[in-house]
Amino acid sequence: MAKQARGIQTRRQILEAAGSVFDECGYEPATIAEILSRAGVTRGALYFHFASKEDLARGVLAEAVTAEGVLPQETKLQEWVDVGMVLAHRLPKEPLLSASIRLSSDRKARALFGTSWADWSEFLSAQLTEAKDRGELLPHVDPDRIARLFVGAWTGVEITSTALRETGELEAEIAALYDCFLPSIAVPGVLRTLDTSPDRGARMWQAHRAQGDQPETDDSGPLPARA
Amino acid sequence: MAKQARGIQTRRQILEAAGSVFDECGYEPATIAEILSRAGVTRGALYFHFASKEDLARGVLAEAVTAEGVLPQETKLQEWVDVGMVLAHRLPKEPLLSASIRLSSDRKARALFGTSWADWSEFLSAQLTEAKDRGELLPHVDPDRIARLFVGAWTGVEITSTALRETGELEAEIAALYDCFLPSIAVPGVLRTLDTSPDRGARMWQAHRAQGDQPETDDSGPLPARA
Repeated sequence: MAKQARGIQTRRQILEAAGSVFDECGYEPATIAEILSRAGVTRGALYFHFASKEDLARGVLAEAVTAEGVLPQETKLQEWVDVGMVLAHRLPKEPLLSASIRLSSDRKARALFGTSWADWSEFLSAQLTEAKDRGELLPHVDPDRIARLFVGAWTGVEITSTALRETGELEAEIAALYDCFLPSIAVPGVLRTLDTSPDRGARMWQAHRAQGDQPETDDSGPLPARA
Repeated sequence: MAKQARGIQTRRQILEAAGSVFDECGYEPATIAEILSRAGVTRGALYFHFASKEDLARGVLAEAVTAEGVLPQETKLQEWVDVGMVLAHRLPKEPLLSASIRLSSDRKARALFGTSWADWSEFLSAQLTEAKDRGELLPHVDPDRIARLFVGAWTGVEITSTALRETGELEAEIAALYDCFLPSIAVPGVLRTLDTSPDRGARMWQAHRAQGDQPETDDSGPLPARA
């Protein structure tokens, strides 16, 4: 394996271990020793990639802002839906993703490393702006505001649904959330074409995985950091 | 002051002190000593009302499920809107209310005392059911599901808006959230009558306060606990 590829793989291994520890214990009780033990890497390797526990949290947050699994669709609005549906499918199975919500909703901890909500909001707003330029949105829709609200609503539905119910229902809840939002933002001709079935995320994710046995380090991973 | 009224006042004082400590520090670092000092009551008085820190957290959560300030309206759906608008107005000013969100979103802590989300959801669902019986909702609307989603969405918008922006904007964000939900649930004739202006909560709350210099212990306080 080339040296660079090995470095990327080690970094990913460390982030996944950090994600699983943060997700299980929360930020403060998480220890570097436990992360090292789960990652199966040396202390030197970890500190080569991350300067501190805060830095690990930042890495987990950045990694969790991802549109991996979202394939090009007829309408931009369907892609906007797919981002949230694929995430609802993946999150309960991937500690790195659910860790990002746990880290962000810890008010004391997040003062140290921030949240990824601004990045998410910016990404979704860019998608909605493109949808609007294509005439898919009602004229009064403000892409920034809808993106920001949707990030909040998605996050809150995840938090409350984890607390109230079994996992596995998140996909159905997020599908219903889209059903609430979409009539207020989509033009009727587009609205009727949108697929918000609860299994949408699972189908998209399978299609993406089938598309090419892609290595973990392909470029459809995390979105670029904000400028 | 009658003995019973004094007891109610002391209990409220303790809950407000507990709310402010939980809101500031989070559950785990909060100490009974600090709560006692803020409440200005004796240890005996506190333990007369609450058996433990967990019990205090439960008390704060129960107290925060409140429709105080919501006055009877022409439509039930306007009252449903007013619940969330009044809360958006009050929450940034009342630590007891914001503490309930901090307590509930702490995954480790809430395993000890639960959350108030099920109570909220039940209350909003009952309002929506009444609205539906009166013909105010579209026929396909499932009051339980909308109530549950809205509790999640409201909570998440509060969490993310606190993290991303200045306080004071919560009312505008929650107003916009209602604007997203309502076209999917209200019949057109009712939809056009609904007031979701950002200052709705402030106006309702003032009207309520003006209505009668009510003492803090009036019966429009917390909703009854779930059966």
